[in-house]
Amino acid sequence: MSKKVLIVGGVAGGASVAARVRRLDEQAEIIMFEKGPYVSFSNCSIPFHISGEVEESQDLILMQPSKFDSQYKIDARVYNEVIEINREDKTVEVKNHQTGESYTESYDVLFLSPGAKAILPQNIKGINDPHVFVMKTVPDVEGLMSYTTAHDVKDVAVVGGGYIGLEVAENLKKAGYAVTIIEAQNQVMASMDYDMVQIMNREIMRNGIELILEDAVTEINEDHVVLQSGKEVKAQAVVMSIGVRPETTLAVKAGLDLGQTGGIKVNHHYQTSDPSIYAVGDAIESTCFFTRKKKMLTLAGPAQRQARAAVDHEYGRTYLNTGVIGSSSVKMFDLNAANTGLNEKQLKAAGIDYDFAYVIPKDKVGLMPDAENLFFKLIFAVPSGQIIGAQAIGKGNVDKRIDVIATAIMLHGNLEQLKELELTYSPHFSTAKDVVNHAVLVGLNILNGEFKKVPVTKVRELVENKAMIIDAREENEYAKSHIKGAVNIPLSQFRDRLDEIPKDQPVYVHCRSSQRSYNMVRALGHLGYSNIYNIDGSFLGVSEYEYFNDVRLNRDPIVTDYNFA
Amino acid sequence: MSKKVLIVGGVAGGASVAARVRRLDEQAEIIMFEKGPYVSFSNCSIPFHISGEVEESQDLILMQPSKFDSQYKIDARVYNEVIEINREDKTVEVKNHQTGESYTESYDVLFLSPGAKAILPQNIKGINDPHVFVMKTVPDVEGLMSYTTAHDVKDVAVVGGGYIGLEVAENLKKAGYAVTIIEAQNQVMASMDYDMVQIMNREIMRNGIELILEDAVTEINEDHVVLQSGKEVKAQAVVMSIGVRPETTLAVKAGLDLGQTGGIKVNHHYQTSDPSIYAVGDAIESTCFFTRKKKMLTLAGPAQRQARAAVDHEYGRTYLNTGVIGSSSVKMFDLNAANTGLNEKQLKAAGIDYDFAYVIPKDKVGLMPDAENLFFKLIFAVPSGQIIGAQAIGKGNVDKRIDVIATAIMLHGNLEQLKELELTYSPHFSTAKDVVNHAVLVGLNILNGEFKKVPVTKVRELVENKAMIIDAREENEYAKSHIKGAVNIPLSQFRDRLDEIPKDQPVYVHCRSSQRSYNMVRALGHLGYSNIYNIDGSFLGVSEYEYFNDVRLNRDPIVTDYNFA
Repeated sequence: MSKKVLIVGGVAGGASVAARVRRLDEQAEIIMFEKGPYVSFSNCSIPFHISGEVEESQDLILMQPSKFDSQYKIDARVYNEVIEINREDKTVEVKNHQTGESYTESYDVLFLSPGAKAILPQNIKGINDPHVFVMKTVPDVEGLMSYTTAHDVKDVAVVGGGYIGLEVAENLKKAGYAVTIIEAQNQVMASMDYDMVQIMNREIMRNGIELILEDAVTEINEDHVVLQSGKEVKAQAVVMSIGVRPETTLAVKAGLDLGQTGGIKVNHHYQTSDPSIYAVGDAIESTCFFTRKKKMLTLAGPAQRQARAAVDHEYGRTYLNTGVIGSSSVKMFDLNAANTGLNEKQLKAAGIDYDFAYVIPKDKVGLMPDAENLFFKLIFAVPSGQIIGAQAIGKGNVDKRIDVIATAIMLHGNLEQLKELELTYSPHFSTAKDVVNHAVLVGLNILNGEFKKVPVTKVRELVENKAMIIDAREENEYAKSHIKGAVNIPLSQFRDRLDEIPKDQPVYVHCRSSQRSYNMVRALGHLGYSNIYNIDGSFLGVSEYEYFNDVRLNRDPIVTDYNFA
Repeated sequence: MSKKVLIVGGVAGGASVAARVRRLDEQAEIIMFEKGPYVSFSNCSIPFHISGEVEESQDLILMQPSKFDSQYKIDARVYNEVIEINREDKTVEVKNHQTGESYTESYDVLFLSPGAKAILPQNIKGINDPHVFVMKTVPDVEGLMSYTTAHDVKDVAVVGGGYIGLEVAENLKKAGYAVTIIEAQNQVMASMDYDMVQIMNREIMRNGIELILEDAVTEINEDHVVLQSGKEVKAQAVVMSIGVRPETTLAVKAGLDLGQTGGIKVNHHYQTSDPSIYAVGDAIESTCFFTRKKKMLTLAGPAQRQARAAVDHEYGRTYLNTGVIGSSSVKMFDLNAANTGLNEKQLKAAGIDYDFAYVIPKDKVGLMPDAENLFFKLIFAVPSGQIIGAQAIGKGNVDKRIDVIATAIMLHGNLEQLKELELTYSPHFSTAKDVVNHAVLVGLNILNGEFKKVPVTKVRELVENKAMIIDAREENEYAKSHIKGAVNIPLSQFRDRLDEIPKDQPVYVHCRSSQRSYNMVRALGHLGYSNIYNIDGSFLGVSEYEYFNDVRLNRDPIVTDYNFA
């Protein structure tokens, strides 16, 4: 007798469930319900339709219901919403939004993949107005585009600086709109650390998007929004992208347990509190790979793997459920950013001791015409040296380096093991000592206490306190621009100028990207200096870190002139 | 008392030794001898000067001796060749090629990094003629370029199709020369498998380079070379790039042991048979990570790590010597290729049971304008599923996927562990189920015996034997071009046409890139067909595999028309 499989939701998780069931069971009757007009669309690509990078909105649809039927014998029903689950009878109540009629379907096994819904705070005046949009589905982006065209919109406010908000803002800007991003926190891209994010802020600013931080929308009007600070921002359309919340309406109504984070609670096999009902994707709560605690994670990759694992369990297969580490990436104008694992904020919250290496090598052999700086932060546990996270920003191939670290994390690698890591090398792709190798060696030196360092975040304080800062670059570099108060003692001269370097106070050394300063720090250590610190990231890192807020807050810069070369 | 450190060779290995010694020991006296005019040049970037991608040959020099001195107090002596080691006295005899004088230097510790020398078979008539070049050093490329200009060279023969030979050929072609590659084996890029290499062959052909395989140069004349086959190839200049041999002259003269492969023998710590003498880089023999056997490996990355490890041992630090896996990459016109670990040929030679997954997914979300096919082969040990190698070719980011696999290999990952691998995803960089994830799942299915497959290399035989081949693509795709004799039963129709699929004979199924055929294979398996095979790589893989030799050998194609879309 064939098994009857019902699936709620037809995007990443749901479509993956359907395809996997079919591959394991040719006889199963498979019905996939989607309340919206489309199944199997690329929700992550939606923002790129705004600029025309993805030309037609229909291109976002990966597979039509007719193809699900003809190729996979999967009955994909769009505009059909499951509105109730009757667990005792093992049936669902479905509302067909096209006919207005309701009907019942029975199931042997039910998979829930309802996704998440955009958060729209009802205390914001005007939040339900027709010129307020979210960006979750194909109709969402179609709605925004037709509205902006019909109403001759010039200014758009994007509320929320997560990855989707940033992509929406970039694509609106490219499409010719004046764009303001409004973010309530002190930084965009919450999965990355504050220090790294400043580099992206500069790119956002450079491309003419206004970025407002630490402020929130309280009121949406026809042609402007009002912020908590009282500031008014011109906007004839608003895109809300402050986050999502698991879609649990149906699960709650059916009496299924929710977890501590508000997502549907699932066991090791993605079964809900009813073993005949599985749940996957953005609606469930995941387990963190590192802390074993529950967390929300709305990513397409994990959703697909959960779908496969759930179906595999239903068909008697075992599955290693490792939990999620959280890997993501984003492109914003000329910069790429990617991260994996836990960041400093999360590590502090979890009470895990850590340290990090921050390096800025070139992403290719420096003499190649398109070699670029790659800002790379490698986070490891202390004292184990276990790899626990990484963040990268640059014009080049940042995702590659983060994927290497993600792999190392999931295989429980530590710094010592990665010391011999043999990556591919040719001058177009990397350097013989690639970014990752470089960061691992610096990390080991830190773990082994071979030198001391201060992060870029502390340099302003050092300058203000008139600390002894040595600039180890050559005189011509110093002349162009330098950290205020820094003494220029080039690496090429310091051995003859040791009398200028005091032994009785902390000394902080930097150069352009820390290569020269590191060598000076090591040498001074050998020469009996015990209070020598390398300034992480050096001039380049400090400049990138300080620039945005100097401009934004009209603050006195701690460098004489900015120089990002 | 300060240590006196001498170093023979001033490129990758030697310069790394010098820099590492200085970081660990500010007092050491460090002298680095280089017989040529330059230390610390990017030998891997040399071919790119031919086309002008690296504009000036001087750009290839990473650091001048004066800078070694001023910044690192390292005495880098160019044109100074160490011609003898006196181990009892711990001295070396040095010849200064500029003054013609010789002198003696004593050492406490000696590091050898003499590199490798190009193989120039003396049985080739004319091999020592002035229009025969190798491509190892900056003077080599300067010599070639000034010769071709001065002698109005139009045609160049590149002998040897390794990575360097290919890069030289590409850059000569881009510089406007007519180029012929002559390779004695049946394939270029020996580190990759024959099936993968065919894809590169097509790119070489497409760009107007003549590629001659299974033939060798026997005679070099002023305006042509003569091959073993009797064929004559027009060439007013010849670049020899058939391989290298470890430079062991000095070591042999000093009575140091050589290993089985002809390289300098070293222990776990890179010490030679004399514990006061270390050796690193292309001159030594390495240990294979997988087989623990000795091998030659001439790569810059391992050389740098060996340098660090040797110095670390000298300074009392421990180092995990994992052996080498062999990771490399190359760009050739619009195609990128990369590989890591062992290939099929090496596995057969080593007697290791293996299998592989061959997949051709898109490297990004398919609807993104620059999404490209990525040809990916993942090799794993049987029965453990331990990851043992991978090869990738495509226009996009192949090195990223290979670096992920290299990391998995070095952390002893297996397929089961990689099932949950959580890589970064956004539509510009990858897909939610990335190439690597995809290959891992296919690999697991193969390991678990979930379906049977035939490789692209066997399809010609199937066609010639009139095997039952099903083309699972749609009718319009089949109409454009198909494998000769294949029956078109689209995935969207096969459930109604089961009577056309015989149960009493093997049936081979393909589509465009195996996604649809795989689904049909699984379904047929569930429907009681026991002799069903998926054709690895499907139409796309078969076309790429067959094309080059069809044209080269003027062979009857097994497809009606080539189609590489």
